[in-house]
Amino acid sequence: MLVQSTTQTAPPGYEPSTAARILEVRTVPYAIPYSKPLKFASGSIAIADNVLVEIVTSDGVVGIAEAPPRPYTYGETQASIVAVIEQIFAPAIIGLSILDREQVRSRLARTVGNPTAKAAINMAMWDAWGKTIGTPVHSLLGGFTDQLQVSHMLGFDDPDVVAAEAIQLRETLGISSFKIKVGRRPVHLDVAVCKAVRGALGPDAELYIDGNRGWTAAESALAIRQLEDVGLSRVEELCPADDVLGRRWLVSQCPIPFVADESAPTPADVTREILAGAATAVSIKTARTGFSDSLRVSHLAEGLGIEAVIGNQIDAHIGTVCSLIFGASQEITARSAAELSNYLDMADDLLQEPLLIENGRMRVPDGPGLGIRLDPEKVTRYRVDL
Amino acid sequence: MLVQSTTQTAPPGYEPSTAARILEVRTVPYAIPYSKPLKFASGSIAIADNVLVEIVTSDGVVGIAEAPPRPYTYGETQASIVAVIEQIFAPAIIGLSILDREQVRSRLARTVGNPTAKAAINMAMWDAWGKTIGTPVHSLLGGFTDQLQVSHMLGFDDPDVVAAEAIQLRETLGISSFKIKVGRRPVHLDVAVCKAVRGALGPDAELYIDGNRGWTAAESALAIRQLEDVGLSRVEELCPADDVLGRRWLVSQCPIPFVADESAPTPADVTREILAGAATAVSIKTARTGFSDSLRVSHLAEGLGIEAVIGNQIDAHIGTVCSLIFGASQEITARSAAELSNYLDMADDLLQEPLLIENGRMRVPDGPGLGIRLDPEKVTRYRVDL
Repeated sequence: MLVQSTTQTAPPGYEPSTAARILEVRTVPYAIPYSKPLKFASGSIAIADNVLVEIVTSDGVVGIAEAPPRPYTYGETQASIVAVIEQIFAPAIIGLSILDREQVRSRLARTVGNPTAKAAINMAMWDAWGKTIGTPVHSLLGGFTDQLQVSHMLGFDDPDVVAAEAIQLRETLGISSFKIKVGRRPVHLDVAVCKAVRGALGPDAELYIDGNRGWTAAESALAIRQLEDVGLSRVEELCPADDVLGRRWLVSQCPIPFVADESAPTPADVTREILAGAATAVSIKTARTGFSDSLRVSHLAEGLGIEAVIGNQIDAHIGTVCSLIFGASQEITARSAAELSNYLDMADDLLQEPLLIENGRMRVPDGPGLGIRLDPEKVTRYRVDL
Repeated sequence: MLVQSTTQTAPPGYEPSTAARILEVRTVPYAIPYSKPLKFASGSIAIADNVLVEIVTSDGVVGIAEAPPRPYTYGETQASIVAVIEQIFAPAIIGLSILDREQVRSRLARTVGNPTAKAAINMAMWDAWGKTIGTPVHSLLGGFTDQLQVSHMLGFDDPDVVAAEAIQLRETLGISSFKIKVGRRPVHLDVAVCKAVRGALGPDAELYIDGNRGWTAAESALAIRQLEDVGLSRVEELCPADDVLGRRWLVSQCPIPFVADESAPTPADVTREILAGAATAVSIKTARTGFSDSLRVSHLAEGLGIEAVIGNQIDAHIGTVCSLIFGASQEITARSAAELSNYLDMADDLLQEPLLIENGRMRVPDGPGLGIRLDPEKVTRYRVDL
């Protein structure tokens, strides 16, 4: 019955494209522990309990992507991602071409929410297509540049601990852009962390903060004033967007870009929040908008004349590569350091080759599709039964 | 010197993608007369004096597109298109991959204006890529549907002549959507045409009007009132966008979508005009935004929540196919009838196979790239020396 209702979105006489068809959509829930759990205002992450999504084509190609469940942000769980893909999405798109992205998008849109499940299907289709023709997805998306500067996320901890972590990352990986998680009470706890990091790194590092809606608007305004001499490049989601007037009051007095992230996960949300004065920049996460809707958000941001930065959905390795590929493919996202390094805190991965950060930068893999290869032994080892 | 300044936009260490490279960019100015010249408020067209643009790749593939000079809209002439491509654009992009679309865009953007010259290069790159991998560009763009309903443009003439033309097009080609060119003085001249066409076609046909900025805001408001019982689906550019407050006053009282066309040729212009209340919908023309920036405009329109319709830059055959391919690839543009039939009034074309309108619809060609093939003999015959 679900199949019937979704296929009605095809226009009369619609013929799928002649490229390889979607034969099967597989989901592989897996779990890899974090060696260092990340703590932030809206939650904490101790284990990567993601869903590997595989699209098998009629040519025998397997496109991959992954969906990270973020119940405190999108309401998805590992089990819900598996269920919606197996029960609703797969039946709706099997038989379509791997190039029928807009038709697939239209069919998936009949189900509300489930952004990371939808995004993983979109990215697995792009990977399958890239592998089919032996071309990197990064090039298929327009190929603006082949590398991005990396920004690292620093979670809650004492000022000296956070400052030491930043110094260590600069020394070992050359990273010089840091997002500091804030939103604790009282405000001076986080102000002290920011000052300590700035003191340790000196004036040339880029620092910015992310509150994950932990503060009130007034606390946020106080923090911005107290952090004035720290020289932040931007701030993100300091207070809840649902505190509508408080947020607008805060943004109107903020001297640096105010980034909407979880408050603007879709293009329509971006328009609403920007026009409402609730933000002046936007974060793009391929984990929730895949490649096709990340293009929508970046084109929208470009057209509205606001900054767009590549954020991190606490991405594991596959998700990190997706962020990297997309961010480097477009001029607007290649301008800023991208949040790509959360995978560093994971105890292991599913890949044959490790990801690499050198001189604070990541290069786009040059293989076909996403340019990465799964290690079947690791996939078997970390697979979980739901 | 020009090459040097444009190549500086490449980020440090940038390596072009590994797909086929741009070896040569050729321009072929040509002229094909119209059997029936088109008259409208901002000008008239008696001859298609376009520029065929060919991109030759290192694989020996030739990607094609065409640029229509519209001096009264964009300030370009046939000679200016040839000159800017040969002297500035070609040297700036030769050696890049045919997939480096965003890098090419960034380099071309260093030259102001010249929208149809830039768009033709973008579309020729897409055609070359599609031909290289044996895949229709329509599929590469996302492949929402494989056909579009056709809307036909009716130029200035007496009411009975225009009505007879509409009837004839419905009888011969099944077309039931018509754009009527208006903007003459006094207003009742055009009102009479609209009423005659509605009377001839009956209630089921779609009718809308395009003023090409010919009326004042007050004349436009009068026309909208006088046309109320004609049942128009939308209106376009009735008065100049530079009559800023008059236009806003007009749009605020307009009961149907008011389309911005020549007043919003770029994404930033779309944002400006929509937020200023100067329009409530937007026209997309691949002739001026190619495929990549047409994606930008359609994604922007989608994100802003406004309609986007496929307009006609008095396109010849190649341009018509580009409009068709793009319009059918995206859900937002596939919703409305697309203006695809201006080529009907041309005395000949450059193609091996004719374009076809059947039952009021055009199907996307299913060949690689744009899916069309040039007739070398015709190209030689219609080529002109500048």
